Amino acid sequence: MSDSTKQHVTVIGLGRMGSALADAFLTAGHPTTVHNRTPEKAAPLIARGARSAASVAEAVAASELVVVCVLDDAAVRELLAPAADALRGRVLVNLTSGSPEQAREQAAWAAAHGIGYLDGGVMTTPPGIGDSANMILYAGSPELLAAHRETLAVLGDPVDLGTDAGLASLYDAGLLGLMWSVFGGWLHATALTGADGVPAKEFTEVAVRWLRTVAWFMSGYAGQIDAGAYPGDDATIDVQVAAIGHLLHAGEARGVDDRLPRLHLELMREAVAAGHGGDSYARIIEAFRTK
Amino acid sequence: MSDSTKQHVTVIGLGRMGSALADAFLTAGHPTTVHNRTPEKAAPLIARGARSAASVAEAVAASELVVVCVLDDAAVRELLAPAADALRGRVLVNLTSGSPEQAREQAAWAAAHGIGYLDGGVMTTPPGIGDSANMILYAGSPELLAAHRETLAVLGDPVDLGTDAGLASLYDAGLLGLMWSVFGGWLHATALTGADGVPAKEFTEVAVRWLRTVAWFMSGYAGQIDAGAYPGDDATIDVQVAAIGHLLHAGEARGVDDRLPRLHLELMREAVAAGHGGDSYARIIEAFRTK
Ligand SMILES: NC(=O)c1ccc[n+]([C@@H]2O[C@H](COP(=O)([O-])OP(=O)(O)OC[C@H]3O[C@@H](n4cnc5c(N)ncnc54)[C@H](OP(=O)(O)O)[C@@H]3O)[C@@H](O)[C@H]2O)c1
Ligand SMILES: NC(=O)c1ccc[n+]([C@@H]2O[C@H](COP(=O)([O-])OP(=O)(O)OC[C@H]3O[C@@H](n4cnc5c(N)ncnc54)[C@H](OP(=O)(O)O)[C@@H]3O)[C@@H](O)[C@H]2O)c1
Repeated sequence: MSDSTKQHVTVIGLGRMGSALADAFLTAGHPTTVHNRTPEKAAPLIARGARSAASVAEAVAASELVVVCVLDDAAVRELLAPAADALRGRVLVNLTSGSPEQAREQAAWAAAHGIGYLDGGVMTTPPGIGDSANMILYAGSPELLAAHRETLAVLGDPVDLGTDAGLASLYDAGLLGLMWSVFGGWLHATALTGADGVPAKEFTEVAVRWLRTVAWFMSGYAGQIDAGAYPGDDATIDVQVAAIGHLLHAGEARGVDDRLPRLHLELMREAVAAGHGGDSYARIIEAFRTK
Repeated sequence: MSDSTKQHVTVIGLGRMGSALADAFLTAGHPTTVHNRTPEKAAPLIARGARSAASVAEAVAASELVVVCVLDDAAVRELLAPAADALRGRVLVNLTSGSPEQAREQAAWAAAHGIGYLDGGVMTTPPGIGDSANMILYAGSPELLAAHRETLAVLGDPVDLGTDAGLASLYDAGLLGLMWSVFGGWLHATALTGADGVPAKEFTEVAVRWLRTVAWFMSGYAGQIDAGAYPGDDATIDVQVAAIGHLLHAGEARGVDDRLPRLHLELMREAVAAGHGGDSYARIIEAFRTK
């Protein structure tokens, strides 16, 4: 149900993600105007109370807050360039994935046209939209985020990354990299334990709890990275080199592919060769900093 | 303070981990007997009320529950072989790291000598001992674990993996592999965001929250793995292949080493080449199952 006390919002782009965003606004009672290149995709949202706008300019005119979520940066430019005048004085929230450089260019374009700009990174899949356990990262204007926080919180928990519009995309890329690494380590371990008959669900319950302990290690190591000192008080890289032998042997005995643990061993060995075997694992960041 | 209503325990091996285990028992009021090859290491524990035993046989005789935590499996054998008679009728809890095969052999040796046996995996570092947020994995005898759960819970939250004594070591290896992967992805991303001036502590706070969302993806994917069906309803491998381009470009622009994301891309491309680009990321488990 649309609620007249709630802020009007516009959502441009009704793919899987844009549709989920518009749906969350409607669920929260925001009067919602939608637009998509292929207009048919608006039908389920219209059925839920959304207003459909025939053009981008019309969609933009309907609300102070305009959320755009399309395929990529090129699509954003193509859609919005003709609507620059209509956008003047409004707030554009760009939740399209792109590079930090593209985000900084969009911010500069918006500033040149008198458009408020927030660049965002959606840190979940469409089914996770509307759940405050999930984060939406925002960069470019803490003031605009503060002003529209309540409305944007409908999509997921807004996280303020400050004034550099490139940071939402940079965090997004880094966090996705972390996700693929978590998936890789978890799938490797699930294959390993699965070889001895452990169901994926059983192993995964333990793995999910273990991530909380690993997160506790990370929080400690982050302080070491900022300080540039890596005391191996709790566990040293030397100890990890010894321990990874068990993983490689267990994998070999079960015919599990070893590319991922071999890469970790390679990174550890580089640190040991550089004389850092007695340091904590956080020292391995140096392997990434230099190509 | 030692509490006469609490179970007597013996800890053999007073390295960093064994000392932390004995310390946790003393803190909880358990009368604690300790033994170490190099006896000097017992001094801080004796000062806290532990009794020191001059031999393994004497240490074993003092308690029904005997925890051993030394360097490796060879050290366990060397220490315990002469004490097999003294151990008869007691419960041996082996928290020494090793392979699943070594654990199964220890369980068979214990059974042949009338010794109760639990194989364990300590899923934290010494400073994390005594915190119930951290897990200690146990395998080999759910009955013995149930009988001694209250005492063992003093060390960390006991997780029962069932009757196969090899599973604590197998989970341990897999979970450490997951940890190295998490560390790798996180350090790579910390180097990436650090290149644009983001302090490690700031990025890590967001990364730790993101792990909870990733854990939610994993829980869903675990069901797909057990079912052997990988519908890409939320996000497909094709979408991830597109997204990893942003990470590689952002890394290249900042001189960040790309071995880790390149390996993930290689795994994704294999799945795409096998015709699974429209499936969820969980399908990548097949890359690990076949060498
Ligand atoms: N899905 C996720 O899990 C997820 C998660 C985080 C971030 N994202 C990001 O969210 C954005 C949208 O993803 P999605 O999953 O919604 O993708 P999608 O389902 O493929 O939808 C793509 C949308 O972009 C529009 N579009 C593409 N090219 C266009 C152009 N040249 N001009 C105008 N509109 C154009 C499409 O319009 P038509 O309907 O007319 O084709 C459609 O609305 C992407 O940047 C993606 O990286 C997605
Ligand atoms: N530290 C951690 O973060 C951690 C985490 C999980 C699991 N673990 C596991 O816990 C176990 C112990 O690790 P730790 O950190 O305590 O190692 P540590 O500080 O190096 O201590 C090694 C212990 O093993 C004893 N030992 C070695 N060889 C022996 C032998 N041949 N005979 C008798 N005793 C022998 C040492 O006795 P001396 O004092 O006489 O040398 C010492 O008590 C290892 O299996 C490790 O993988 C450790």
